[in-house]
Amino acid sequence: MSANPRQLHLNAFLRNVGQHEAAWRLPETDVAAVTDIEHYRNLARIAESGKLDAIFFADHPVLKERSQDRPWDALDPFTLIAALSGVTSHIGLVATASTTYNDPYGIARRFATLDHVSRGRAGWNVVTTANAEAAANFGFEHHPDPAERYARAAEFLDVAYGLWDSWEDDAIVGDKEGGVFVDPDGINRLDHVGRHFKVAGPLEIPRSPQGRPVIFQAGSSEPGKELAARYAEAIFTAQPVLKDAQVFYADVKGRARSFGRDPDKIVILPGLSFFIGGTEEEANARQETFENLTLPTYGLAQLRRVTGIDFTDHDLDDPVRIPARAEVAGDHKSRHDLVHRLTSTETLTLRQLLRRLSAGRGHRIATGTPDQVAATIVEWFEQGAADGFNLIPPSLPTSLQTFVDEVLPILRAKRLFREDYEGTTLREHLGLDRPAVGERNRFAAAAE
Amino acid sequence: MSANPRQLHLNAFLRNVGQHEAAWRLPETDVAAVTDIEHYRNLARIAESGKLDAIFFADHPVLKERSQDRPWDALDPFTLIAALSGVTSHIGLVATASTTYNDPYGIARRFATLDHVSRGRAGWNVVTTANAEAAANFGFEHHPDPAERYARAAEFLDVAYGLWDSWEDDAIVGDKEGGVFVDPDGINRLDHVGRHFKVAGPLEIPRSPQGRPVIFQAGSSEPGKELAARYAEAIFTAQPVLKDAQVFYADVKGRARSFGRDPDKIVILPGLSFFIGGTEEEANARQETFENLTLPTYGLAQLRRVTGIDFTDHDLDDPVRIPARAEVAGDHKSRHDLVHRLTSTETLTLRQLLRRLSAGRGHRIATGTPDQVAATIVEWFEQGAADGFNLIPPSLPTSLQTFVDEVLPILRAKRLFREDYEGTTLREHLGLDRPAVGERNRFAAAAE
Repeated sequence: MSANPRQLHLNAFLRNVGQHEAAWRLPETDVAAVTDIEHYRNLARIAESGKLDAIFFADHPVLKERSQDRPWDALDPFTLIAALSGVTSHIGLVATASTTYNDPYGIARRFATLDHVSRGRAGWNVVTTANAEAAANFGFEHHPDPAERYARAAEFLDVAYGLWDSWEDDAIVGDKEGGVFVDPDGINRLDHVGRHFKVAGPLEIPRSPQGRPVIFQAGSSEPGKELAARYAEAIFTAQPVLKDAQVFYADVKGRARSFGRDPDKIVILPGLSFFIGGTEEEANARQETFENLTLPTYGLAQLRRVTGIDFTDHDLDDPVRIPARAEVAGDHKSRHDLVHRLTSTETLTLRQLLRRLSAGRGHRIATGTPDQVAATIVEWFEQGAADGFNLIPPSLPTSLQTFVDEVLPILRAKRLFREDYEGTTLREHLGLDRPAVGERNRFAAAAE
Repeated sequence: MSANPRQLHLNAFLRNVGQHEAAWRLPETDVAAVTDIEHYRNLARIAESGKLDAIFFADHPVLKERSQDRPWDALDPFTLIAALSGVTSHIGLVATASTTYNDPYGIARRFATLDHVSRGRAGWNVVTTANAEAAANFGFEHHPDPAERYARAAEFLDVAYGLWDSWEDDAIVGDKEGGVFVDPDGINRLDHVGRHFKVAGPLEIPRSPQGRPVIFQAGSSEPGKELAARYAEAIFTAQPVLKDAQVFYADVKGRARSFGRDPDKIVILPGLSFFIGGTEEEANARQETFENLTLPTYGLAQLRRVTGIDFTDHDLDDPVRIPARAEVAGDHKSRHDLVHRLTSTETLTLRQLLRRLSAGRGHRIATGTPDQVAATIVEWFEQGAADGFNLIPPSLPTSLQTFVDEVLPILRAKRLFREDYEGTTLREHLGLDRPAVGERNRFAAAAE
């Protein structure tokens, strides 16, 4: 296979019964699937049958507002993906977890174990949690601001990497005759003392198949990009526009280079939602079917979350214009900019805006025939905007199955996506090396 | 099956390659199994083939001393048991987790999810963590004393129960036509503010199949018994002597009654280790095989942990006498009492003592033919000492397979243990009712 051109990386971002807020109202959707393990097993099997790199789950440690309007990711993603390790054999398993509302020993321990029980398929999508309401579930007086969250995240990752480096690969001797199970010299204490954490270590878990889980990072803010360039091995980003995605791509790869890292070892995966039809008209009709089922109460709550503005009293059928954002920093900057731009370049009623936003929620949307969807993927891949995509099926399992059945064969015909797995670990799928013990510490020290 | 007499409950307590410190040195033991998911899948399948109530894992969030002398429980038990949910269908899944080194929202969330993904097979063995060294992995200046740990545990459980009661069973409406996914009146906020925790809730997870995981408690100290009598639905206790076990049994059931609880709904399960042979001589030889492979360095470290006394300079072949314990409270009282009693009633050399202690580590040991082991089980079960046992195989998978193959048929012939599962949830296996929302809050309030 060495004659193959550069290969796409494709994950399935699996959100309850689909990313689209109205997916649950489609006739084919089973609303009980939200908490049904058989539903998630089925999704994992479909994704693995497509030889995707990984399945990917979000984390929301709080019940979001307007839960009456749509299902949400109701299961703890880490527990869910650990359970799915038992019914899959090759596909990567990526769970999101927060550095703000966890402790580093617990996280390092759980992900090292996941890497063992999945035989090298664990990935951790590192987030600092954007939902301010989560603070109240963890005893915090208020949700820390982004600068504080990212400072904690960086120290959290330093501790986690140190814990994952507790064990030399050959520390377990297993000498029955001599009565020596491990070589104590192969175990490294951590003794970290920092501003946020004090952790002695070592981890009680021998080094895992991948050395450590693959580190994903999601978040496109300035501190998010900085964290990603330092630590991330794969990046999930919301990029609706090709040109912006190219700028982001070059920016992050350049930053990584400045930290002494090989930019090819950071896999950039924008989100991609899609509505597929046999013809362009059918695809548009498919998207409209979803949009016709949206509930304005939900869209208004989302719009308020992103912009800080309450449009409840605005007539749904009157034109609406979202003002530009005053501050530059903050959690929802890029999505605010998006709705500002949308309503500045077109005249949209509030209802039209809400429907428009429902489809991608800030991510790139491809609506069209399988060939058209594949063409979008290839365009971004070949024009310096993406190393692949986090696929965001609007409905589950339907849209995922359609993508596997109809788009993947086109990408395979172009020799841009694997026919079968060539390795067994997530690192192998993503073309990432297994790190040596202490490797990151050396590179981080060199960069400081 | 209603004509059956009262039924035994039997769990398999699965510790790496076996509870016995020398199990790893047996010729048949695969030392790589310690972190190998296929080993644990095999154990789960053996236990499920025996129709046991549950498999049960310990929690040690710290690398213990003398790791060079023997394997330990090297994987995070929660992650491991979540992974095993995918390869089993009926057997209960009990993971130990600490209320000292976790936060209640995270624990409530993970166990509720485990109950969903296992379709009602989750159990949580609540501990306050006895390993003082764990504190240094979680930023604590020192390990809290037992009174402090148990006060935190009680509030932790109050919060967890409150979070598991966040959702009425019928809160999910799923009305596609009307656009109502959940009934907001079916969701209960918690708004807990206490001495240790401040947790708003609700949990973002709809109510799980069992309502909440089955609550196990391990710990036989005074505050441990009090916590157990208030909250526990099953109790794991170390009781080497029938008479003491009877006292413990009556004590806990009596305390539960005083809290307004039905004592039949608290299942008491002493630990039981066993060495089985075709004849009594073979069984004794089997036990001796283990004891001959013990390493005194390990036994000495354990003895120091329990008694606080360092016998490193004591000649292994000189008689030893362990003084009585001064204080009454503390973490290792019952085990200290045990070694004190052992060395007061018999003259044992230090080597003999270490070998004797290696077999059960404070638990009841049955050594003999399958009939003799079964007779011990029946005796304790019928004489008010146990509702069943946490079986502690000294080597894995061997001893577990032997128990399933040779002892279970005898118990079945006496109609004391199920031929097959009659239900699908752990509560059903244990004869426990599914709690109503708010049920514990009502009983706790009545008791105060």
